[in-house]
Amino acid sequence: MKPWSGRFTGETARSVEAYTDSTKVDARMILEDAWGSEAHAIMLARQEIISEQDLKKILKALKQLRRDYTAGRFKLDPALEDVHMNVEAYVTAKAGEDAGGKLHTARSRNDQVLTDAKLVVRKRLLTVMDLTLRLQKTLISLARRNSKTVMPGYTHTQAAQPITFAFWASSYASALSRDVSRLEGAYRTTNKSPLGACALAGTSHPIDRKLTARLLGFDGLVEHALDAVSSRDFMAESLSSLAILMNSLSRLAEDIILFSTSEFGFITLSDEYTTGSSIMPQKKNPDVAELLRGRTGRVYGLLFSLLSTLKGLSSGYSRDLQEDKPPLFEAFDVAESSLAVLNGMVDSMKLNKKKMSESAAAGFLCATELADYLVREKGVPFRKSHRMVGQTIKALIKKGQDFSDVAQVEAILKAKKIEVAAKQLEKILNPNKAVYAHSSLGGTSPREVGKIITSLKNDIIRREQRTRKWENKIALAQKMTARAAAGVLAGKPLSKLLH
Amino acid sequence: MKPWSGRFTGETARSVEAYTDSTKVDARMILEDAWGSEAHAIMLARQEIISEQDLKKILKALKQLRRDYTAGRFKLDPALEDVHMNVEAYVTAKAGEDAGGKLHTARSRNDQVLTDAKLVVRKRLLTVMDLTLRLQKTLISLARRNSKTVMPGYTHTQAAQPITFAFWASSYASALSRDVSRLEGAYRTTNKSPLGACALAGTSHPIDRKLTARLLGFDGLVEHALDAVSSRDFMAESLSSLAILMNSLSRLAEDIILFSTSEFGFITLSDEYTTGSSIMPQKKNPDVAELLRGRTGRVYGLLFSLLSTLKGLSSGYSRDLQEDKPPLFEAFDVAESSLAVLNGMVDSMKLNKKKMSESAAAGFLCATELADYLVREKGVPFRKSHRMVGQTIKALIKKGQDFSDVAQVEAILKAKKIEVAAKQLEKILNPNKAVYAHSSLGGTSPREVGKIITSLKNDIIRREQRTRKWENKIALAQKMTARAAAGVLAGKPLSKLLH
Amino acid sequence: MKPWSGRFTGETARSVEAYTDSTKVDARMILEDAWGSEAHAIMLARQEIISEQDLKKILKALKQLRRDYTAGRFKLDPALEDVHMNVEAYVTAKAGEDAGGKLHTARSRNDQVLTDAKLVVRKRLLTVMDLTLRLQKTLISLARRNSKTVMPGYTHTQAAQPITFAFWASSYASALSRDVSRLEGAYRTTNKSPLGACALAGTSHPIDRKLTARLLGFDGLVEHALDAVSSRDFMAESLSSLAILMNSLSRLAEDIILFSTSEFGFITLSDEYTTGSSIMPQKKNPDVAELLRGRTGRVYGLLFSLLSTLKGLSSGYSRDLQEDKPPLFEAFDVAESSLAVLNGMVDSMKLNKKKMSESAAAGFLCATELADYLVREKGVPFRKSHRMVGQTIKALIKKGQDFSDVAQVEAILKAKKIEVAAKQLEKILNPNKAVYAHSSLGGTSPREVGKIITSLKNDIIRREQRTRKWENKIALAQKMTARAAAGVLAGKPLSKLLH
Amino acid sequence: MKPWSGRFTGETARSVEAYTDSTKVDARMILEDAWGSEAHAIMLARQEIISEQDLKKILKALKQLRRDYTAGRFKLDPALEDVHMNVEAYVTAKAGEDAGGKLHTARSRNDQVLTDAKLVVRKRLLTVMDLTLRLQKTLISLARRNSKTVMPGYTHTQAAQPITFAFWASSYASALSRDVSRLEGAYRTTNKSPLGACALAGTSHPIDRKLTARLLGFDGLVEHALDAVSSRDFMAESLSSLAILMNSLSRLAEDIILFSTSEFGFITLSDEYTTGSSIMPQKKNPDVAELLRGRTGRVYGLLFSLLSTLKGLSSGYSRDLQEDKPPLFEAFDVAESSLAVLNGMVDSMKLNKKKMSESAAAGFLCATELADYLVREKGVPFRKSHRMVGQTIKALIKKGQDFSDVAQVEAILKAKKIEVAAKQLEKILNPNKAVYAHSSLGGTSPREVGKIITSLKNDIIRREQRTRKWENKIALAQKMTARAAAGVLAGKPLSKLLH
Repeated sequence: MKPWSGRFTGETARSVEAYTDSTKVDARMILEDAWGSEAHAIMLARQEIISEQDLKKILKALKQLRRDYTAGRFKLDPALEDVHMNVEAYVTAKAGEDAGGKLHTARSRNDQVLTDAKLVVRKRLLTVMDLTLRLQKTLISLARRNSKTVMPGYTHTQAAQPITFAFWASSYASALSRDVSRLEGAYRTTNKSPLGACALAGTSHPIDRKLTARLLGFDGLVEHALDAVSSRDFMAESLSSLAILMNSLSRLAEDIILFSTSEFGFITLSDEYTTGSSIMPQKKNPDVAELLRGRTGRVYGLLFSLLSTLKGLSSGYSRDLQEDKPPLFEAFDVAESSLAVLNGMVDSMKLNKKKMSESAAAGFLCATELADYLVREKGVPFRKSHRMVGQTIKALIKKGQDFSDVAQVEAILKAKKIEVAAKQLEKILNPNKAVYAHSSLGGTSPREVGKIITSLKNDIIRREQRTRKWENKIALAQKMTARAAAGVLAGKPLSKLLH
Repeated sequence: MKPWSGRFTGETARSVEAYTDSTKVDARMILEDAWGSEAHAIMLARQEIISEQDLKKILKALKQLRRDYTAGRFKLDPALEDVHMNVEAYVTAKAGEDAGGKLHTARSRNDQVLTDAKLVVRKRLLTVMDLTLRLQKTLISLARRNSKTVMPGYTHTQAAQPITFAFWASSYASALSRDVSRLEGAYRTTNKSPLGACALAGTSHPIDRKLTARLLGFDGLVEHALDAVSSRDFMAESLSSLAILMNSLSRLAEDIILFSTSEFGFITLSDEYTTGSSIMPQKKNPDVAELLRGRTGRVYGLLFSLLSTLKGLSSGYSRDLQEDKPPLFEAFDVAESSLAVLNGMVDSMKLNKKKMSESAAAGFLCATELADYLVREKGVPFRKSHRMVGQTIKALIKKGQDFSDVAQVEAILKAKKIEVAAKQLEKILNPNKAVYAHSSLGGTSPREVGKIITSLKNDIIRREQRTRKWENKIALAQKMTARAAAGVLAGKPLSKLLH
Repeated sequence: MKPWSGRFTGETARSVEAYTDSTKVDARMILEDAWGSEAHAIMLARQEIISEQDLKKILKALKQLRRDYTAGRFKLDPALEDVHMNVEAYVTAKAGEDAGGKLHTARSRNDQVLTDAKLVVRKRLLTVMDLTLRLQKTLISLARRNSKTVMPGYTHTQAAQPITFAFWASSYASALSRDVSRLEGAYRTTNKSPLGACALAGTSHPIDRKLTARLLGFDGLVEHALDAVSSRDFMAESLSSLAILMNSLSRLAEDIILFSTSEFGFITLSDEYTTGSSIMPQKKNPDVAELLRGRTGRVYGLLFSLLSTLKGLSSGYSRDLQEDKPPLFEAFDVAESSLAVLNGMVDSMKLNKKKMSESAAAGFLCATELADYLVREKGVPFRKSHRMVGQTIKALIKKGQDFSDVAQVEAILKAKKIEVAAKQLEKILNPNKAVYAHSSLGGTSPREVGKIITSLKNDIIRREQRTRKWENKIALAQKMTARAAAGVLAGKPLSKLLH
Repeated sequence: MKPWSGRFTGETARSVEAYTDSTKVDARMILEDAWGSEAHAIMLARQEIISEQDLKKILKALKQLRRDYTAGRFKLDPALEDVHMNVEAYVTAKAGEDAGGKLHTARSRNDQVLTDAKLVVRKRLLTVMDLTLRLQKTLISLARRNSKTVMPGYTHTQAAQPITFAFWASSYASALSRDVSRLEGAYRTTNKSPLGACALAGTSHPIDRKLTARLLGFDGLVEHALDAVSSRDFMAESLSSLAILMNSLSRLAEDIILFSTSEFGFITLSDEYTTGSSIMPQKKNPDVAELLRGRTGRVYGLLFSLLSTLKGLSSGYSRDLQEDKPPLFEAFDVAESSLAVLNGMVDSMKLNKKKMSESAAAGFLCATELADYLVREKGVPFRKSHRMVGQTIKALIKKGQDFSDVAQVEAILKAKKIEVAAKQLEKILNPNKAVYAHSSLGGTSPREVGKIITSLKNDIIRREQRTRKWENKIALAQKMTARAAAGVLAGKPLSKLLH
């Protein structure tokens, strides 16, 4: 018999029980539901809505529940619908109907489920931030070790200009900073307490919402009760931050897939981060990078599941909202594991510097350098200089040559009334030199990349400190609740325990 | 040690094993993988690529595997990556390296995984068709029982014209026919064998692809090997058919949610298909309908996961494609359970005919009838007649009245030089009469709805026969494979067993 | 003043007029709205709901409208909301309130807009089918010209096995066949007449829905009126068929982008299908292929817009549905232009056969061949043979060698107690030979590819005939309506004109 | 001939020109491109990369361009591909090849297009913020005027507890605050200058990126050049903020649609914000709210287009990115117009307080109040009290009664050994009283709602000030550039103009 079944005659159909069951995803919120219940019960007693005797019984039951859970003995029963009813039923069984039956005073599953979800989401946001910062550090360290390794830079997947590997690697560290910013924004939106909003309109019991918020480590309240129970935008914001983060990672994965083809041949992934073929003995496939790219699509779909589910719902809780946590929690799973494997893969890959350097020297990668030289030293307007270099390249291709045939370049330019000595051309068309020349702010020159790395490192340290601060606040709140609960169980009056 | 690890030195990282693990979803394809392996092995022996002795050992091992699986003793080991390597490892363990090591001859995981997936997908498509046909029958039977129950029909969620409940219910049965058509289309696309495509280019072994197709109940081949292993459009087509089906269901769910509010009050859901509130004792919520509506968003997201994952992949298998089955299989789960609960909910709901009838009589639902009457009997052009009736309504609203005040209507029209007797007006403005009058083909009149119901029933029977035919073909193929395998185990020569 | 404003006092706000305006997209349905109006008016007269005199006036006005439209003089006025009200207003202005005001008898914008949309959608589906068939033919002709051009085939973007260029090109022709099938399915779903469903419930006027369906070239009716006006699944089916088609194209685009990098170097796009860089004079970018890949994402989003807009609407027309045509029509725009440019790009690209052949010979592409040889000729079980070849490759890589050093291969195998003469190895490890050896059904051998091309050609001819048949039917219906209209204008009685 | 066509022989195909044309969307960035070009040219001269004479010619040409544009004489030519080439071509035509050809020195379309886009996006973000703040103010003012209007609050679209209209209206104002926060976050991510990143790697010219950033009103730089040109996350963040905002609005729209049905009847939309039916004279449809709900789906699809387009691209600019602006700009169009019409609709709607009050009194809305009373005054544990009230309701429903029959309630409770006087019950079950009782923080009591309104107002003022500050900064930068340009044209040396 369901706890809400007073007005009902028939029993829930079996298929309906299975259809509406949320215990699978709720199993990830058991300790959060317990913590929320402790905080709520302590507040009820503190406000004299329930007695300290009843509180003691409730807290004792919750302590047992934690122990049972840790020992793997507390499992959610689908017949009790969700984590909330399971925890309440456990408490009632242990503490008796009289005490246990009071736990749900001035509380609804509508504010309770949001509280639980927020406790989970903020924790996972912190984990994703940590992992992203770690990947940034790995990329920076990779950059640092390869500050002078020259390779082709690409646009349109076509070789464009020579760059350094450090420049390539640090570009991802730079991009990920903005991902961390978005995750921080999501954290701030998330970490406000909805507890006390009750079903939709607050309550006539004299509750203290600020006290529960403090006990649960929230940074404040979503004050408006109807807004609190209707809102899922913290989930949509978190999930879209994860989707955008996955997009950053999918770009890195794509580069790795390309660079590890035999045609590009710039990097060799370690055996630990590749797999073989069941039929072709020679294959060594960048499976991890491919899966990460594929799972980016997965996370996009999860975001759209959530958004589409939310669209056009009327205000107040609707059961559609049960479909909010599965996509979000799964997105966290994907993001966390993706960051972790990518970190290992990037850290363990080997560079084939010779191949990179050869590719940077082949073709016409220094065409822009030559055009810029004509602008600077020969006073040719850029648009004209661009055209002249283009024509030079067309002529070379016709002859089956490229910029390595410096004499030929010299001759072609001469025919266009531009004199550049072969010696000079050798300098201009040398990708290593070109890389040093690109010394504008944020350019690929080793000095500029060095500055950016320093600035990124400082940024990472700042963000790590912030993350640490937030983690500490949560840990402190956990301790505060635990200490208060221990005090009550030890028979101390609440008034001495909370201040 | 992985079976493909000949060229590898390092071991796969633990985190990579977890990241690339597909055994969770592959666990749904174990019997399919076994069937495919039986068919493949039989063909190899028939083509004298392996000996009948080796075949016997392989088939014996696969028989044991089926037994172990049924007994719950065969579990997929994530360290072996996927269902294929798990099954092959089992066979090799039982049949010895010499025989077992031959099973993968002229086969790749690339064609094998598609074969397994198609065996699953076609089965589930058949299930969804069956469930949809069942829901159509429930709706038709509901319509049949309520052929004269008058209620308001809506556009813009605003009461528009009187209709019958039969008309409303049968409209969904009608729409679902097209959903079944799309599922049938997806079935036809799916049920072609990719087996024998191997890695991407076929093989130099003299295999017989038609034989394996026959043993597996396929309706033909995807002949082109590279197309076969690259293609996932049968999945996208299946999943988009499911998404569109869910949309049909979400519309029905929305109507049910509206109609069961106390404000509309047309239907009462049975207790079995509703749930209560943890805090508000009076609540009886249409949770199932709400969840179904929410899960429609879920399925949309799954479709977009799949499409987004597929976008821009180059040809040939890429590991991204591992992300194809989870969204599709989950979409089947949602569609099947949604159809089942919706069927029960629709079947058990109670109609409040009095409330429906009152609502149909209130307001101005017969305004179109009046306008049409003026067109037909008074020769007023429709656009003018529409305007006159509109002005009449404006005048009535100003006085706080509606069409029930027939004398008032008569007076207003008279002022516009249109004479219609109150008696006549009463007839025109009676929703029950209006319903009968709408006797154009496909209209709401009981006679027309009766005809549509008959035609829908015939359509359903036709489709059920087709589904049955397809199911039989699969069952026959299963028997054919089993009989051949049993024959081989009994020592009979293959040449006597297949013809 | 709006034609529906009888009961209204206030005027529509300007911003609302702009917000609800659909004339931009409706401008694509003007001729369709005129055709539908002609058919409807003819039917009304034929059923004696309006007089033949009035019909004549209406048809004359519609004839003028067509002339004005062709001359660019008929523009939709946003103040009149949509194409329907614009056309009706034009007719009323020309034919007078008495005749023109009768055009909307027994019709609603709800069935009218669907009729118009279906006339557009079926036409565009036919165009997309035509363009897809044309691209298939281009691919087949490309394949035919390169039946013996050897190149590497890829899985995981890693060189896997040697294939022919014909095999690669024909794989896309093969995949596109299924796209055409889906478009045909969408055509069948679409080409059923909703006209006569009226607002939602049919009408009390004695209309003849079959006559209008015939005059408009429909293949039948969506009989159920409420189903007819509520349904948008033909749009969702059409749009998902386009999305899946775009995915096929995006795969081809991705291969082209890869193959035209200097690293792969297999193809050179013609200057007409590439663009340059504003700053780097050497660049020649595959912009068209990139844009096509990007627009695939666009079309996915359009599908999601449509599905998300439809989700959870109650039955009967809702204004949300105005958002159905923009995504669908835009998806047609993208698909049509993408097919056209891709066709030109594929047709004009140049192959660098030498580069392909070298790439196929490098590395270890024939590893599977060697493993299969050991299976066939030396009786080694495949799994063991796979391992041995894998170890051979590992040993070669360590020495910086590959399969071209046949003596080395011979030595390594010998150490494993496998004797294969160098002569024999040369044959096995020759990609050209390997390609011929892959002669299983659907494999890459020229003979098999030849068979597939023949079968594809036959399939294309069959489909072209079907498309032609459908186009003819539409053209005939257009003529039938035009002839009837001309007859009426010439003073002939309707009874002589329709039979 | 294209400006980049030096190395090309063939001309771009016509269909390709159409396919790659971006001038339609680029037309929205003409003034931004001109501003960016002014800033860039001034910087080039300041750094002595071009002469002050050339600068003067360029600035003069750009001034003419602005004049031509304002006069409607400057139109983008698709043959010149995009806004950048159009502007450069105009400048070159006016200033001569020598001066004009230097404008593109040390700049690429890759950094230029991002600069233009960011100038547009930040402006539109500010507009959306302004409009959202305005809607919040309208909602608050509506709330203020209806602080004591009692209505039912809903969960599961089922009447749940009595609330005030002020509580309902202010809940949306509260939710929108978080939307503004997200838009502010997107603004901060957006407003960093990419100019000077050039193609991907910076430049060898001695440019000053900080100066252009200052002249363009940016708050800083995206320093890393490769990150700068590859990144589109500011677009994804902006678009997902808009999608989440639209979701908030769609909820409000849904409530309005429900509340304006005749069944609910709580509000009457003004004629200006509704439309009629072409066939049913009585209809007055909430079209605007429906369209807004539908367009929410549109915006979701736009977000998906963008994300899907970005997925898996390699680093560096790819032409796929051309598809970034259309979805984002269209999302801004939808969001801005939606906010504007919703504001007018909310502001002009009429409340039917009597209907609200009757609905709040009917049924069992005060069931929670009764349960809470039994907890508070009779010491019944909540879970038991919930069950008792549930049973009471079941008994009343059986008798066809509700809470208005106080004597009956008294009797039923008495039978359960709970004595509550009818007088007392009347108080408890009075929705007006219940509303006052819900005085917990954030609850529906007028006092609490009053506090929330005050706090929201303060929040709005704070945000308005911030928006104003940002707008001013942009205006100042515009002036700074204009003043410098004017100075140059007046013949003053740059060194005197910039400091």
